[in-house]
Amino acid sequence: MWTLAEIAKHIDGVVHGDELHQVRNVATLQSAQSDQLSFLSNTKYTKYLTASNAGAVIVSQDKLVDVPLNAIVVADPYVAYAKAAALLNQEKNNQRGVHPSAVIDANCSLDPTVFISAQVVIGSDVEIGANVVIGPSCILLDGVKIGDNTRLIANVTICKGVSIGSNVLIHPGAVIGADGFGIANDHGRWIKVPQVGSVQIGNDVEIGANTTIDRGAIEDTIIGNGVKIDNQVQIAHNVIIGEHTVIAGCVGIAGSTQIGAHCALAGGVGLVGHLQICDGVQITGMSLVTKSITVAGAYSSGFPAEPTERWHRNVVRYRQMDKLATRVKKLEAEIKN
Amino acid sequence: MWTLAEIAKHIDGVVHGDELHQVRNVATLQSAQSDQLSFLSNTKYTKYLTASNAGAVIVSQDKLVDVPLNAIVVADPYVAYAKAAALLNQEKNNQRGVHPSAVIDANCSLDPTVFISAQVVIGSDVEIGANVVIGPSCILLDGVKIGDNTRLIANVTICKGVSIGSNVLIHPGAVIGADGFGIANDHGRWIKVPQVGSVQIGNDVEIGANTTIDRGAIEDTIIGNGVKIDNQVQIAHNVIIGEHTVIAGCVGIAGSTQIGAHCALAGGVGLVGHLQICDGVQITGMSLVTKSITVAGAYSSGFPAEPTERWHRNVVRYRQMDKLATRVKKLEAEIKN
Amino acid sequence: MWTLAEIAKHIDGVVHGDELHQVRNVATLQSAQSDQLSFLSNTKYTKYLTASNAGAVIVSQDKLVDVPLNAIVVADPYVAYAKAAALLNQEKNNQRGVHPSAVIDANCSLDPTVFISAQVVIGSDVEIGANVVIGPSCILLDGVKIGDNTRLIANVTICKGVSIGSNVLIHPGAVIGADGFGIANDHGRWIKVPQVGSVQIGNDVEIGANTTIDRGAIEDTIIGNGVKIDNQVQIAHNVIIGEHTVIAGCVGIAGSTQIGAHCALAGGVGLVGHLQICDGVQITGMSLVTKSITVAGAYSSGFPAEPTERWHRNVVRYRQMDKLATRVKKLEAEIKN
Repeated sequence: MWTLAEIAKHIDGVVHGDELHQVRNVATLQSAQSDQLSFLSNTKYTKYLTASNAGAVIVSQDKLVDVPLNAIVVADPYVAYAKAAALLNQEKNNQRGVHPSAVIDANCSLDPTVFISAQVVIGSDVEIGANVVIGPSCILLDGVKIGDNTRLIANVTICKGVSIGSNVLIHPGAVIGADGFGIANDHGRWIKVPQVGSVQIGNDVEIGANTTIDRGAIEDTIIGNGVKIDNQVQIAHNVIIGEHTVIAGCVGIAGSTQIGAHCALAGGVGLVGHLQICDGVQITGMSLVTKSITVAGAYSSGFPAEPTERWHRNVVRYRQMDKLATRVKKLEAEIKN
Repeated sequence: MWTLAEIAKHIDGVVHGDELHQVRNVATLQSAQSDQLSFLSNTKYTKYLTASNAGAVIVSQDKLVDVPLNAIVVADPYVAYAKAAALLNQEKNNQRGVHPSAVIDANCSLDPTVFISAQVVIGSDVEIGANVVIGPSCILLDGVKIGDNTRLIANVTICKGVSIGSNVLIHPGAVIGADGFGIANDHGRWIKVPQVGSVQIGNDVEIGANTTIDRGAIEDTIIGNGVKIDNQVQIAHNVIIGEHTVIAGCVGIAGSTQIGAHCALAGGVGLVGHLQICDGVQITGMSLVTKSITVAGAYSSGFPAEPTERWHRNVVRYRQMDKLATRVKKLEAEIKN
Repeated sequence: MWTLAEIAKHIDGVVHGDELHQVRNVATLQSAQSDQLSFLSNTKYTKYLTASNAGAVIVSQDKLVDVPLNAIVVADPYVAYAKAAALLNQEKNNQRGVHPSAVIDANCSLDPTVFISAQVVIGSDVEIGANVVIGPSCILLDGVKIGDNTRLIANVTICKGVSIGSNVLIHPGAVIGADGFGIANDHGRWIKVPQVGSVQIGNDVEIGANTTIDRGAIEDTIIGNGVKIDNQVQIAHNVIIGEHTVIAGCVGIAGSTQIGAHCALAGGVGLVGHLQICDGVQITGMSLVTKSITVAGAYSSGFPAEPTERWHRNVVRYRQMDKLATRVKKLEAEIKN
């Protein structure tokens, strides 16, 4: 239980109401009880303020007049909520040591504060920093390096030689450092191009469940500091992702493409290989990027669904466009005469 | 071996021919031998009836005249085949107990009829119902609940607090309850929004290989009874899927979108976040859904491939449409004068 | 360390310069030092030749004049580089035996030369050939067969009865032989159609991280010899892939579709079910294939992204095409009068 005063101090806010009121965790405006903290960020939820039973609500100054409850006023309610929720949901991460079922090569350097869970496998020459948690059934192949405070939830595979920074969070099923898709056509048969690069993951990165990040063909694949990657994303060999870029679920990025800092790729976006995307680019859902982008801003190509009957008709029309253009040209010529 | 009479009773059918003929398993009309059962559902396979060596064939009444073999006549041959195949391929699931290599927290409640395979990890406060099978290397983190007769094939990860119903089947590599992709932008850096909700999976659900279903941000992600989900599907936080909806491979559903009952999403479909899709909606392959749908029926946007040369020309024409429309408008004005 | 003479012999090339010069590994033209070998395949890198410190460079005859370094002249520099890199990066795969933490059913046939890593689970009736490496935490369910020299890197799941050829390489998280997505609608509820087929993987196949290949519904799913599959690919039940076809990341292939030999599917491509794709077809990125293809060549449908504002306008125009065509028709009629 935390008092509103303690929370307000943590999130840089000002309490309106009972500073000593205590809350246990967070909830939505609609479901929160008196021992729960809520927030108002999206104005379409303003209507739920009046009837809310929340112990307190985090709001911006301009919404304070609508709040019949205890409030904590902040500059950015969503960011403040994130920080408050983190405060109220701290993992009690006081476990240390190595589970007896873990298999760890003798030739490793593990900080004494690490926690290695059941069924983990760790190869030789692995280095693990302070307060790292390696969850159940994770695999760290030879030569992996992991910085302080990083956490692998469970069933994460880190391939040989991959380097991971500090404060990184990796979700189950992620595979970091599998071979890139390098093949050469030798008279009709594909032969493997050895993938001798590695992967470097920066600090403060989050990597979603079942996401794959391939090792480089010769040099390394690089994920910058602060990058956040959702589930089922595929990042091919030698891709470079700039700092604080976010990548939503099911994105695929082909080999050697470089993405700038502070970009945002929405769900299902695909980028072909060898592109340069500058800083500050947003790509909307399911777009296909086939050329480099040199100007910051929003880009799109995904087509929105419509009733199938109408879609059929539009596809037919689309394929007749060439003829339609020819007909218009002919009309123009006839009019001129 | 089962007699046709026994099978007919199980699938609510009527035998034409030798009721005591026995079959061992199922096969296609083309390959079936006399100890195998086949079926005719798609009429394009009718041509294979004459030469088939099957021990019997499941057909509808109107096809019976074409069958030179033993037959079992039913109302719906594909449904009847599914039931017959299940009868002939029952898993001999009489294994019970816990493999000695499994690591199970002392504070768990496991029904005495469960079977826990090798290398499994089970955290604290886990509850597992009757006749549940937890296949090799599955991970159940703290607080997971699993209903009766549910089966996790192998290498499935169920994150903390997730609740799974009865008669659920989960394939390898699936990850249920990883953190949703919740981030807030704090002056250019993304900070994590703790994902304090969970996931509720109903009864009679099937979840495909390497599919991911994220835990809710505050409240729960919910998968209704009878929902069938294929491989490599990504279901984001706070999505709600209605009963008996089917989701094919590679679908991505963004956060807080709600899908009704008896819907069908074809392969590769993407839905943006915060949509409401009503009951009885079908979305065809690789469509992008950007708006809520309030009328049952079929919706599409995926473009069918064509020869690349023609596609190039069409894309160019597409981008000239604005100019084309202007030219037509000009023509209309000129004609009027 | 290898001399250039030794390497040239291995890659069928001719040394120009110091045959006895030794190199340790490979690097790019820009970063290579004197103990490293580089190559020039893409002419856009020709500019880096002059300043390169590489110990030698693999080039084609026509580029030799530009090389101020030791050179190995070959017919196809990329193929030759692949072979040289393989020579210089041979896995020291001299480990044999079974790690004590592996759980292996008594009723298996393992060649004495196999290496089974930590935390592996192997079911009954499994057969494993010579020099096979089963990496950490892999799972081979009952009845799996694996040919000589095949390697499963780590955390690979092979389901019951799946057959895998020789010289196959499978990356972490891949799931081979999970149930296909077979369901039948029984009065509004979906019931499972048992998936009684299996999967056959040929020789010299590579399968990427988190890729899924489903078992057949009645007969088998088949992956031909020499097929190369990237990460996060979904191959549904009863798909057949012809020899030496390559499939890039995030491709989805629906059930019973057959793809010929020497095809190439780029990233994110989707194929609906029951198609026949002939030999020698290339599909460009994120295309949707809805019909069979009977003529070799390139096919496309993915739309390239453009600035969102222009994209919005084009989508609107696209949806007005029907009206536009009507207006043109009207103009044509008016002109005629």
